[in-house]
Parts: sequence; structure tokens; C-alpha cells
Amino acid sequence: MDRKNQRRTSFRQRVFEILEVADVGDRASQLFDISLLVLILANLAVITLETVDGLTAQYQVYFEVCETVSITIFTIEYLLRIWSCTAAPEFRHPLLGRLKFLFTPLALIDLTALAPFYLPLLIPIDIRFIRVVRLLRVLRLFKLSRYFQSFQVLGNILKSKRDELLVTLVGVLGLLWLASTLMYFIEHDAQPEAFASIPATMWWGVATLTTVGYGDIYPVTTAGRILGSFISILGIGLFALPTGILASGFTEELERRKSKLPQNTCPHCGKSL
Amino acid sequence: MDRKNQRRTSFRQRVFEILEVADVGDRASQLFDISLLVLILANLAVITLETVDGLTAQYQVYFEVCETVSITIFTIEYLLRIWSCTAAPEFRHPLLGRLKFLFTPLALIDLTALAPFYLPLLIPIDIRFIRVVRLLRVLRLFKLSRYFQSFQVLGNILKSKRDELLVTLVGVLGLLWLASTLMYFIEHDAQPEAFASIPATMWWGVATLTTVGYGDIYPVTTAGRILGSFISILGIGLFALPTGILASGFTEELERRKSKLPQNTCPHCGKSL
Amino acid sequence: MDRKNQRRTSFRQRVFEILEVADVGDRASQLFDISLLVLILANLAVITLETVDGLTAQYQVYFEVCETVSITIFTIEYLLRIWSCTAAPEFRHPLLGRLKFLFTPLALIDLTALAPFYLPLLIPIDIRFIRVVRLLRVLRLFKLSRYFQSFQVLGNILKSKRDELLVTLVGVLGLLWLASTLMYFIEHDAQPEAFASIPATMWWGVATLTTVGYGDIYPVTTAGRILGSFISILGIGLFALPTGILASGFTEELERRKSKLPQNTCPHCGKSL
Amino acid sequence: MDRKNQRRTSFRQRVFEILEVADVGDRASQLFDISLLVLILANLAVITLETVDGLTAQYQVYFEVCETVSITIFTIEYLLRIWSCTAAPEFRHPLLGRLKFLFTPLALIDLTALAPFYLPLLIPIDIRFIRVVRLLRVLRLFKLSRYFQSFQVLGNILKSKRDELLVTLVGVLGLLWLASTLMYFIEHDAQPEAFASIPATMWWGVATLTTVGYGDIYPVTTAGRILGSFISILGIGLFALPTGILASGFTEELERRKSKLPQNTCPHCGKSL
Repeated sequence: MDRKNQRRTSFRQRVFEILEVADVGDRASQLFDISLLVLILANLAVITLETVDGLTAQYQVYFEVCETVSITIFTIEYLLRIWSCTAAPEFRHPLLGRLKFLFTPLALIDLTALAPFYLPLLIPIDIRFIRVVRLLRVLRLFKLSRYFQSFQVLGNILKSKRDELLVTLVGVLGLLWLASTLMYFIEHDAQPEAFASIPATMWWGVATLTTVGYGDIYPVTTAGRILGSFISILGIGLFALPTGILASGFTEELERRKSKLPQNTCPHCGKSL
Repeated sequence: MDRKNQRRTSFRQRVFEILEVADVGDRASQLFDISLLVLILANLAVITLETVDGLTAQYQVYFEVCETVSITIFTIEYLLRIWSCTAAPEFRHPLLGRLKFLFTPLALIDLTALAPFYLPLLIPIDIRFIRVVRLLRVLRLFKLSRYFQSFQVLGNILKSKRDELLVTLVGVLGLLWLASTLMYFIEHDAQPEAFASIPATMWWGVATLTTVGYGDIYPVTTAGRILGSFISILGIGLFALPTGILASGFTEELERRKSKLPQNTCPHCGKSL
Repeated sequence: MDRKNQRRTSFRQRVFEILEVADVGDRASQLFDISLLVLILANLAVITLETVDGLTAQYQVYFEVCETVSITIFTIEYLLRIWSCTAAPEFRHPLLGRLKFLFTPLALIDLTALAPFYLPLLIPIDIRFIRVVRLLRVLRLFKLSRYFQSFQVLGNILKSKRDELLVTLVGVLGLLWLASTLMYFIEHDAQPEAFASIPATMWWGVATLTTVGYGDIYPVTTAGRILGSFISILGIGLFALPTGILASGFTEELERRKSKLPQNTCPHCGKSL
Repeated sequence: MDRKNQRRTSFRQRVFEILEVADVGDRASQLFDISLLVLILANLAVITLETVDGLTAQYQVYFEVCETVSITIFTIEYLLRIWSCTAAPEFRHPLLGRLKFLFTPLALIDLTALAPFYLPLLIPIDIRFIRVVRLLRVLRLFKLSRYFQSFQVLGNILKSKRDELLVTLVGVLGLLWLASTLMYFIEHDAQPEAFASIPATMWWGVATLTTVGYGDIYPVTTAGRILGSFISILGIGLFALPTGILASGFTEELERRKSKLPQNTCPHCGKSL
């Protein structure tokens, strides 16, 4: 009995290893990772190509096969993950550990990837909402995040500069509101349709501050153009501030790695020292 | 008599504390801050939504209620600030201290926030200027600045790099003038309306140097396009210079903070480790 | 016999030196470099000007002379390089060394530069493919790379930051896909032609994220504009991330050069002070 | 005689001091600087406003008065500079020193500022060239450079990063040529007018790589849009590279200033150590 249990445990341990991102040299796990990566990318490709008129008519069958196969594999993957998660120390408890695992971000993403298929079976969904439910398949993109752990380095830098970036964002939103409000009062009389209201003028404000400049809306009065010029030039600062912040973040990160001190975060705010 | 005075002083002290940005743990002050923050944001929302045609007709009453409530609260807040400011050491003198307080930037911002209501009562204002006076409500945006003290760090970096940024700005304005003048002489004959004068051509210059490029005005002659290409490429430097300046500013700031604090303090939150 | 062999070797050595990028003071080699540089630039100029309608009619003869002269010189250059490459230690073996040399990137570039002339002689090429074969002349641009070795410093920095840049690129592509997919579902009904499918919407996504904003395609619905605004603002991060990464790369490179060289050497030119 | 000579020398010395940019506390020199600065700015304003149709008719007289006054003052200034330049050690020789002074950049700029008036008097100029000669007044902008010596710091950083910036520029031009050539072959058949030739397509290339995106020319074929997307994304690197280079330049400059070592340049290449 004990041996059987042990064998099952070690089998579960192996399943867990294969499901997780592969360690160097673990061929079976690597093969599984690559297969799943390809399946996810195929899913994204299907979502993309389904919207092309000519293709849908011709390849509808293949798209549906792909969807069915994906749902089957994703379901098995999801169930195996729940079954094997107890192999990880933090989810060791058979019930509570699994419940805890179900609410990790990656497990929630895996669940939403299944929703478009299972949701209509569980709840009677109005035909009008079918489209919204199908749209949930878009979230399969985030299943990829498991395989790009290098994002974490980037995420750490963004996190360590959170305050500065947030202040910049607040400043940008304030500037956007002020610019759009002033521009509305200047341009509304000359172009009552394009600059119909302050929210409408904000579309001009975003296009100008971010220097996208589609050209669907722009000031034509002299006062409007002078204000627009100021905002455009201030828009340059909009690029300079976050770039400067991130540049110093990357330099810091580098120095931290060089010094390789073990205790490199503040226990109070969690930022790098 | 003395005790009564002391009680009043300590009451004034408490009012002052509540009006100021809350210290950690001061629940009453935090509640006041959040209430006022919400009220200011509601004001900005009303200014924004009032300009949307459909909404004004329907919600005019609510907008007016919001304005009346805001004016009442802002007036009380302003008067309480003047009354309690003597609790701060720098405004201790009952009369001169208060006068000094009235001319601080934050107090002036608070005053302008009241102007759209009280100005027409105090001075007979021509109906044509009513709109301009109402526009002063836009300045309520700056009432928010009290609650974003982190802007100061950003402001310090901008201030420490003032000279370099100013020289960059002068260079940009010079380049803008030169580019627009040359472009005017090249393109005026081919497009006498779009490139009507040098000031008009500057609108093209700004759109090109900042890479906004609305597309309402652009050179069509070969010479004009060659000049335009040069200016566009120089426009890249326009982004590179302030970004480089600010990046070195942020790196400096960080080093300054590190060297200033004792070794066992977090440079981000200032707490001891 | 031995002496004759030696003389031939030293002649081959000299040819090799002349063909390679000149050392300081080697006049003959410098002259050869400049001549070839001018010839390559003339080739690029011909490719460019051939497409201008008026010029082709008038200067067709000159363009053909230039092509014939170029092919002759490039052929001789290519053969001499193969013959003399054994003067370099890594290609010393008369046969294997030459084979190894033939597959170096620079030798392959030299070969493709000859393809537009020799390919139709070797293989019977359908008249429809003539244009494609002629297009291969564009690759002569890369013959210039031999003369810009400073690109290597830039290349090294890009290589040392490969991982961060790649992660940024993956993130950008993911964001582009997500933005385009959501925008398609929002805007397709309002603009069924411009936002015809997800791949078509990606053209909008690229123009927005990179802030190019041609203005041929942009959202018109309120929901679309709100999404578009988010994406535009996120597009700023798209500039901030690689810039921050490269800025830290350049700072690193400089420090590396400083620490590598002995104290009394210039980190820029490597000369002793 | 000797005393008279000395008095004249000291008078010339004083004139020289007044003409040069003022030392702190030298009121007369400061007043002169400000007067000349205002005069130059007035000149630029006149050049700008002359092109505005309505204004020329009305203020023609004032514009001409301004021109006459400017020419008079600029002439006197120029002659005084030549007379007094011998007060500077490097131009001490009465004849050779003055000749040397005449060919300094600032003196040449002062001369060109006078050309539009004196050139037609000296050489009989065809009426068709009058406009070109008048355009020389634009160069008065550069008379301002004397008063913005902080440009030198910026110039030093640009100079110390000359090589990296030049390589980036060459890379950009190569990429521009390659992108435009490929785009021409892809789009020419679909849009024979907009993409008429490779030089014409380069106008698209510049607008895309610099992210200006006027929207007057853009690809419409699928292949063209895919290439355009690649080029747009590469265009981001076009901003990232010079910015990264300059950011490291500013950081270096800062460190140099901090260490304040007297011998901080390499005697071989002149770059900062």
C-alpha cells in the first residue's frame, strides 16, 4: 500500500515536472513545452485568420478541428495541473493546496482559455452574448506568459520604478485634460464637429501628445495652432520622462547584478537598494 | 481665559492637521483628503461632461448642484485654511502670517477655484466675459497638486537639469525658425495657401520636428521634400537630447539619495533596514 | 623553385593586404578601398536613378556601361579574394581554407553582387524572374559593410542586450496582436472596410504603437477611440524600453573599455597617454 | 605720445570688453549685449512677419526702418570688432591678427549679416537674384550663437560621441535606402504615382522611419504593409540608438565634472577619458 502510494507520488512528481517549464536537459518536458507553445500560437493564428473573409469560407472545417483539439488538450492540461500541483511545496495540502493553486494567476488564465467552450454548456447563454464569450479565446495569449520568464526581469525594473512612472502618468493625464479643455474652448466655434466636446477633443490630445497624429482632427485657428505647438513640444517630454526613468532603472539593475549582494531589496517597500 | 485660548489653539491645530495632507494613521485627515480629492475630480468631470451636447440638456440640474456644493465646500475650506494657517510656524503671526499665506501658490490656486462664482458678484462683468470667467474653473485641476507631492522629486530633477533643457529648447526654437523660413521660400510658390507665410509654415515645422505629422500640410516639391527629410531626421535628435539629459538626471538623483542616507537606510522609502 | 614559390607567396600576401581594409599608411590599399567604395556607391546610385522615368530614357547607355564595368571589377575582385585568401592564417589550406572562405558572410555578399549577371547565363531563367534576379543588385549595399567596421561596436552592444531587446520585441508583438484583435471586434461593424479583419487591423496597430499614424485608418467609435488612446500611450513605453536598455548598454560598454585598458590608455582610441 | 597711445589702447581694450559677452557686473557691456540681442530678435521677427500678406501692406515702412537701423548698427559693430580685436592676445598683430580675426566663424557670420545690403552695391546683381541675396538675412539667426555659450557643453557631448552618432547615421541612411528600394519594387505597380521612383519612395521612407507619417503616401498592398510594419518597428531603434548614445554621453560628462581632473582628454583623439 505504502509503496503503491509512493509510486503514485513519484509519478505525480514527474507529471508536475513535465507540465512545468522544462529544466535544462529534461527532453520530455521540453517536448511538452514546445508542443503546447505551438498549439497556443496555432490558436492565436486561427483567431486571427477566422476574421479574414475569404479564408473562413474555405478553411472553416480546419478552424473547428483546431478549436476542438485545443479545448481537449487544454482541458487535460488543466486537470493534470490541478492533480499534480500538490508536488509543489506551496500547494502540498491535497485540498487547500489545490484551492490555493486554482487562484494563482496562471491557473486562472488556463481556466479562461476553456471558458468559450464550457461556459455555454454550464449556463444558458443568450445568443447575443455568444460573440463576447468567443472573444474570451483572446485571453489564450496570456498562456504564453508561462514560457517567457525573462519578462520577470523587465517586470522587476518596471516595479522598482513604479512610483516615478505613476507620477509621470498622472502628470500626462493632467496635461492631456488641460490641453484638451483649452483646445475645446479655442477650436469649438471654428470646427464644431471635430471639436464637439471636451471628451471628443481628448482624442486630438492623445494623438498629439503621443505624436501619433493621424490627421483626422487638428486645429485650424491661429490660437489653436499655437496651443497645439506648445502641446506637441511638451509631448516630447512625455517620451523623455519614462525613457529617462527606465534608463536609470536598467543601469541600477546592472549594478545590482554586478554587486550580487544577497539582500538587495528593502523589507519595507520591496524596492531594490 | 488662558485655558479657553489654549483649547481654541489646540482646536485650530487639529483643523490645520486635518486640512493638510494626512500623516500616516490620521484617519480623520485621510478621510478629508479623499473627500476633497473626489470632489475636485467630480468638478473636472462636470467641466468635461458639460460640453457634451446630449448630456447638458439631461443633467443640467445635477451639474448646477455639483457646482453649488463645490463652491460652498471650497469656500469653507479656503476660509478654514486662512483661519488655521497660523498653526504652522512660518505663518504664526495672526495678520502678517495670514497675508503671507494668502500669497503662497497653493492658496492662490484655491482662490482662483472660487473666482468663477464670486467675481461676477463683486465686479459687474460684461456678459461677453462670463465665458472666460467660467473657464477659470479649469484651474481647479491644480488643486490636485497638493495631493501629489511625489511631483516634487520629478520637479527637482527637471530643476537640476534646467540649464541643459533650456539650451535644448532654445536650439529647438532656432531650428524650428530656420527650417520654417527656408521651407517657406522653397514651397510658397508651389503651395501658396498651405505655406502662406513663415508663421503659417511654422505649423508644418512643429508637426515635423515633433514627428506628430498630422498630414494637413507637407512639402510637395523635390527641394521641399529634401529639406523636410533633413528636418525630420534632425527631429530625432530633438527626442534624444532631452531624454539623454533626463536619464542622467535620474541616475544622479539616485546616487545622491544613496550617498546622503546612512548605509542602513532604504534610498526609496527612507526607512532603516 | 623554392624562391619562385616564395616570391609568389609574398605577391599573394601583398594582393591580400590591398584587398583587405587598409592599415594606416598603406597608400595602395587605401586607394583600392576608396575606388571600390566609390564604385559601390555609384552602383547604388544607378539602381536608384534607373527608376526615375525621365532619366532612364536619357542615360540608359551610361547605366549599362556602369553595370558592365562594375560586374567586371567585382568579378576580378571576387576571384582575387579567393586566390589570395590563403594569406590569412584561418584560410591557409589551399582547398579547405578557400572553401571555408567562400562561406564567410562577406564572401557570400560578394557572390550575390555578381548573381544578377551570371545567374541568367548559368541557368535558363524565365523572363518573368528576370526582374527578381535584377533586384539582387540591391544586396550590393552590403558590400559597404566591409568598410564600416565601427558597426561592430554597435553590434556588440546590441548583442550584449539581445535578451532584453528580444523580450521587449515579444512583448510588443503580443501587445500588437491583442490591441488589433480587440480593435477589430470594436470597430469592424462601424468601418467594415478599413477594419476588415484582424490582419488588416494590425496595420492600424503598427501605425499607432510606433506613433507613425499615417491617418489612412483610425477608430471612429467612442469605444475604439478609448482603446486607441490606451494603445497610443502604451506606445510611448515601446520607445522607452529599448532606449533604456540601449542607454545602459552604452554606459556598460564604456565602463568595460575603461576597466579593460591599463590606466594610461585612452578608452576611445586605445593609444597610450 | 606714449601716453596717448596707451590711452587709445586702454580705450580699445574697453571697446573690446563691451563688444564681447559681458563679464558678471560689467553694466555697460551687459546693456550692449541685451540691446544687440533685442535687435537681432527684432530682425528675425521682421523677416518672419514680412511674409504675412496683411502685415506687409500696413507696416512696410516700419520693416524698412528696422532694416536700415539694423544695417547701420551691425556695420558699426562689425567695424568696431575689427578695430578692437587686437586687444585679444590671439589677434594682437595689427594686420595679421585682424586678418585672422576676419576668418573666425563669428566674424564671418557678422559679415554675412551685412551682405544683403552691401552686396547689391558692390556687384551688379541680376534682379532675379535679389531674392536669394535677401534670403541671406536669415543667417542673422547665427549672430545669436555668441550669446548662448552653454551650447558649447552640448556641442562637447555631441563631439565626444561623434563616431557612434555617425555610424548610427550611416546605418539609418543604409536602412532608408534599402527600405525605399524594396518598397518601390513592391508598391510601384499598385500606386505608380505615389511610388513613382526610388527617390520618390524615399519620401515615404523618411516619413516612416522618423515616425512623422504625414499620410500623403503609404503602402496599400499586403506585401507593402508587411514591409512597412517592419520598417516602422525598426524606426523605433532609430530613436533608441542616438538617445542611448547621448544618455551615456551626459552621464560621462557628469562624472568628468565631478572628478574635475585637469587632464581629462586624450591627446591623441581629443575625446574625454
